[in-house]
Amino acid sequence: MDETLREWDKIIIGIDPGTNVMGYGILGIKNKKPHMIAMGVIELSKLSDRYLRLKRIYDRVVGLVEQYLPDEMAIEAPFFGKNVQSMLKLGRAQGVAMAAALSRDVTIVEYEPRKIKQAITGNGAASKEQVQELLKRILNIPQSSILPQLDATDALAAAMCHFYETSRPIKVSGGAKTWKEFIAQNPKRVK
Amino acid sequence: MDETLREWDKIIIGIDPGTNVMGYGILGIKNKKPHMIAMGVIELSKLSDRYLRLKRIYDRVVGLVEQYLPDEMAIEAPFFGKNVQSMLKLGRAQGVAMAAALSRDVTIVEYEPRKIKQAITGNGAASKEQVQELLKRILNIPQSSILPQLDATDALAAAMCHFYETSRPIKVSGGAKTWKEFIAQNPKRVK
Repeated sequence: MDETLREWDKIIIGIDPGTNVMGYGILGIKNKKPHMIAMGVIELSKLSDRYLRLKRIYDRVVGLVEQYLPDEMAIEAPFFGKNVQSMLKLGRAQGVAMAAALSRDVTIVEYEPRKIKQAITGNGAASKEQVQELLKRILNIPQSSILPQLDATDALAAAMCHFYETSRPIKVSGGAKTWKEFIAQNPKRVK
Repeated sequence: MDETLREWDKIIIGIDPGTNVMGYGILGIKNKKPHMIAMGVIELSKLSDRYLRLKRIYDRVVGLVEQYLPDEMAIEAPFFGKNVQSMLKLGRAQGVAMAAALSRDVTIVEYEPRKIKQAITGNGAASKEQVQELLKRILNIPQSSILPQLDATDALAAAMCHFYETSRPIKVSGGAKTWKEFIAQNPKRVK
């Protein structure tokens, strides 16, 4: 363990799971203020075999968890996609990333993309570029250290969203914690 | 490791992943003949939290892999389901089971339910009861040792299907190994 990690009150890992690229962002909280510790992407598109891709996700997420020892994992998780095939693939990628966290007893929370965008920019329909721009300002990230990958800032945004959700004195709007709850809250979105 | 496991030429674990019940079956191969070593189900429906369910799947599959040291894992994997939400949930359950295998370097193969039924009974539209009945005869399983759970025999059937596929001198019909291949083979099934 990196001794400098002990200085944080809490560490959140944000994950934006995808089947071609998976983004991650590590957020450290100290004195109720968030700071970016690291962010990046896990490239998967060069791996032709789908199990190699899943193994890469598992190994890298386990590696990040062991390196940064996060207390919680915030996952960007769309509940709906364009077709059943893409949702099955996305579910597998999410499941593998979740298994990596669960295997190390890291608590998982998930947020819908819309909720994350709303939390960072105040607009649930904001672009990835807007999310990145706002994060740079909020976290004082030097221009030079920003990676071009929007998946990395998307993942960091998930961690930030979770920080906002858990640091509020009163919970204004909670995400659905179970499918039942989600369905109850969104009756018209269930097909 | 149980020393009696050394007598097998190959061990295949079959998994039938579900979000309420997950079935498993362990098949040992000796002198090109299959034998049932174990089978059962992992109950998930009593766990209300979806992450507890995923963790249960991960822990139990890792436990089975460490107990029986399978060479390969055969998963029953429907490519299509009734809606995107159920496919996302199924994908997560599959992903977690796959991560458990991948974390222990067990090779994964997947078969469609139709293909498994075809391999066991000669009829791709056979019922779960028919699959169970045929498996009992093929593997000489005493009546008393059959669990009532059809998910357990379904999982064992996936392992048997993989045994048939890999023990044939000439591969008659190979399952799709990539999404691209699957789409090329099944153009009309892609929505």
